[in-house]
Amino acid sequence: MLSFQGENILSVNQLNRECIERIFAVAKKMEPYAKKQKRTKVLEGAILANLFFEPSTRTRVSFGTAFNLLGGLVRETTGMQSSALAKGESLYDTARVISAYADAVAMRHPDAGSVAEFATGCSVPVINGGDGPNEHPTQALLDLLTIERELARFDQTIDGMHIALVGDLKYGRTVHSLSKLLCHYKNIKFSMVAPDGLQMPNSILDAVENAGHKIQLVNKMEGNLAADIVYQTRIQEERFPSQEEANKYRGGFRISQSIYNAHCKPNSVLMHPLPRDSRLEANELDNDLNSNDNLAIFRQVQNGVLIRMALFALTLDVADKVEQYEVDVPWFSHKRTS
Amino acid sequence: MLSFQGENILSVNQLNRECIERIFAVAKKMEPYAKKQKRTKVLEGAILANLFFEPSTRTRVSFGTAFNLLGGLVRETTGMQSSALAKGESLYDTARVISAYADAVAMRHPDAGSVAEFATGCSVPVINGGDGPNEHPTQALLDLLTIERELARFDQTIDGMHIALVGDLKYGRTVHSLSKLLCHYKNIKFSMVAPDGLQMPNSILDAVENAGHKIQLVNKMEGNLAADIVYQTRIQEERFPSQEEANKYRGGFRISQSIYNAHCKPNSVLMHPLPRDSRLEANELDNDLNSNDNLAIFRQVQNGVLIRMALFALTLDVADKVEQYEVDVPWFSHKRTS
Amino acid sequence: MLSFQGENILSVNQLNRECIERIFAVAKKMEPYAKKQKRTKVLEGAILANLFFEPSTRTRVSFGTAFNLLGGLVRETTGMQSSALAKGESLYDTARVISAYADAVAMRHPDAGSVAEFATGCSVPVINGGDGPNEHPTQALLDLLTIERELARFDQTIDGMHIALVGDLKYGRTVHSLSKLLCHYKNIKFSMVAPDGLQMPNSILDAVENAGHKIQLVNKMEGNLAADIVYQTRIQEERFPSQEEANKYRGGFRISQSIYNAHCKPNSVLMHPLPRDSRLEANELDNDLNSNDNLAIFRQVQNGVLIRMALFALTLDVADKVEQYEVDVPWFSHKRTS
Repeated sequence: MLSFQGENILSVNQLNRECIERIFAVAKKMEPYAKKQKRTKVLEGAILANLFFEPSTRTRVSFGTAFNLLGGLVRETTGMQSSALAKGESLYDTARVISAYADAVAMRHPDAGSVAEFATGCSVPVINGGDGPNEHPTQALLDLLTIERELARFDQTIDGMHIALVGDLKYGRTVHSLSKLLCHYKNIKFSMVAPDGLQMPNSILDAVENAGHKIQLVNKMEGNLAADIVYQTRIQEERFPSQEEANKYRGGFRISQSIYNAHCKPNSVLMHPLPRDSRLEANELDNDLNSNDNLAIFRQVQNGVLIRMALFALTLDVADKVEQYEVDVPWFSHKRTS
Repeated sequence: MLSFQGENILSVNQLNRECIERIFAVAKKMEPYAKKQKRTKVLEGAILANLFFEPSTRTRVSFGTAFNLLGGLVRETTGMQSSALAKGESLYDTARVISAYADAVAMRHPDAGSVAEFATGCSVPVINGGDGPNEHPTQALLDLLTIERELARFDQTIDGMHIALVGDLKYGRTVHSLSKLLCHYKNIKFSMVAPDGLQMPNSILDAVENAGHKIQLVNKMEGNLAADIVYQTRIQEERFPSQEEANKYRGGFRISQSIYNAHCKPNSVLMHPLPRDSRLEANELDNDLNSNDNLAIFRQVQNGVLIRMALFALTLDVADKVEQYEVDVPWFSHKRTS
Repeated sequence: MLSFQGENILSVNQLNRECIERIFAVAKKMEPYAKKQKRTKVLEGAILANLFFEPSTRTRVSFGTAFNLLGGLVRETTGMQSSALAKGESLYDTARVISAYADAVAMRHPDAGSVAEFATGCSVPVINGGDGPNEHPTQALLDLLTIERELARFDQTIDGMHIALVGDLKYGRTVHSLSKLLCHYKNIKFSMVAPDGLQMPNSILDAVENAGHKIQLVNKMEGNLAADIVYQTRIQEERFPSQEEANKYRGGFRISQSIYNAHCKPNSVLMHPLPRDSRLEANELDNDLNSNDNLAIFRQVQNGVLIRMALFALTLDVADKVEQYEVDVPWFSHKRTS
């Protein structure tokens, strides 16, 4: 992909390192707009069709916000029930219809491949916001951008880093996509920390190995979290063959401040594909980490807005015009000093 | 209706030929804005209340898009459950409340007459987006505009054309309203192609006849589709007295490319009030027509945006100010060349 | 609260008379914008997160409209089911996430205290749009502003007025909050008109008494409605210990024009926290009052928009910049003459 103009963003497989670096360069340029230090009207009058055929408040609002931050407007649909799809309309027809309304589309759908199918009928750029178990490329990009920026605080780079992927690596879509993107980088050490039966699929392991990276497969956190990046994912207990099996691991993949102190490096960065389950039975990041400066989960959210702004700006070919449409911000914003 | 300023658009019965032609003239002027060749801010700061008490993604998004394309903003409500109506509020009260928020209202509601009832309490223009089995005037107008524009490609006019209305003509609201609007035109030949028991109601037939048009009533497509316009509607099988009766017609009102080749004229234009049911059991337009240039169903969608823009512009009295508020479009748009 | 900049508005308890008067002064300045006599772009580019975890069309659209009228955009979520909260996310996490998207938050939630809890994690101003049985400060403020403005028509003031609170005073959140705000005023006569068992809680009565006001507790409307302001609330029949008990009061707290004529003063102002239940069995304001000039219920709605505009303008610190960003209104608006 030499130019992004008019392109769809459907899969991480479309992206090589040059693409990724272009996206990241634009994303970083978007930060002052996202922080309301200034604003731009470059997409004023443009319309995003934000089509969520499956609920996801965070991702939906993030896409809408990103478009608004570039000056554009959002028309939205949530839930299959409110859609003509329920009356037997094909994704192709829906796409032809939406093409009459929108300048860009962000779409989430429960079925794998549905967003790509939609894109074949659509005459405007389509950004995949998650098609079931298949792809969620903006999540992978925001994770990767977060890693790059967090490491930069310590003068490190993605090339040469040590990353621990923790939790359900078998079914976790985000760690699969992130691993694929990391294949474009060099000399990474992966610690794959998962319960037996929930390890990373061989296809991903092969790709990572073929990229020249080192892999360590382990089934417990103890002794395996001293990484630059610790990326935690949820384990759903119903993934185990029995509750007895689940109980063996219960709590064993939950990171708290004391586990951080005992097993991580002094500046290990903690990441997670939100939402983080704060209920007692969940195996996730403890709330006592909230005051840990290296908990990067909310910076991931901020980076998600930047990534989505960048993808809209690139596919609609305004990445180089953003400054030209700049205007002032007269209202009070906490964000200026954060 | 000499002026549209501040008026409600509730029914096709309000519209004479002069009104229709005024709406169409404004609609055509809206096309470069809808195609993003340029844009206008004439309604910047205006608020549309887009009240959908019944789901309809296409119509809802079309109204919202039309308002956005004129520069306005949209506040929206979808579904009866999220409304004070569920707590016993009258439509009159809801209308008085919404009048405090909006500059215009688009409304869909499952009950016949409800939109007109709402309009009595509302101090801003109300556009009927469909009140159950009763009226859906913007659909009739977009159908008529499509007919005019499709025929113009072949130097034909609505006056003097031959139109075949196909399918469920008894319950199909769109063909009723369209037939009423066509009574303002001259010398049309109607082929009413419907299964026995689903023919056009006598009241409509009388009106069409009184307008001086010719009518042919038939119960099969074969030999009856050689019209300038073929308008297909869905037959719901539950309309028949028994499944045996339904089976007699199953597939008999489905148009495919081979049926088009066998029974239509070389340039018969195919129309349909979307959504088109693409499931196997439906009696609708086949997907193999998608590459047929005379399949006008997606141009109907585009014309729907233009009609709704025109109605907002006319009722809010900015039809002649649109150009004055014109600004440039800096982003890439596929639509410019389509 | 000396300055509103960056503050949350969570409870009427935050507000003293100076605060209230500042809010009212700004609210009144907002009226020409709400009536579309002119408009302002002071919040153009700002984003409101309008988070409704419980349905409330009126309040949701009012907040969104208020933000739009200042020039801002709205991202919205409705219903718990579409939220990450359903996956176990804490309100704290949700707040941190939303802080990355929005410049201000309006939030309704069924649980008491939830909006305040959310605000602890949020870096932008949060306006409470109702947290279950607990607080709904913008309702109390719009009620109070309405009282002030209605009385001003007759050269009266809140200080020294006579107000009758009627109906379910035990569970009615609005009358509790309004009573608290009225404690900042002087020399008011309260008639608390409620069925036995549904009288005002002692804590509120004590506060009112401590503020130096006079209180009369009665259990029927007859003879007790000759007040400057008559504020009617709904009685839910399930509040009574038995249906027999409910039947004793059925119809006894319903105000119609003939009851108004018999028991109110010539210019008693009628108020109600909408929605008004228009079903026969409800004990509310009759529709035959709709042509009574002193029925202020729809002016309450208009004042609600002004209050919410004022709170956004104050917390985002643009109350003094509104005029600076003024632009013209080119479209036709009924509201100009209303």
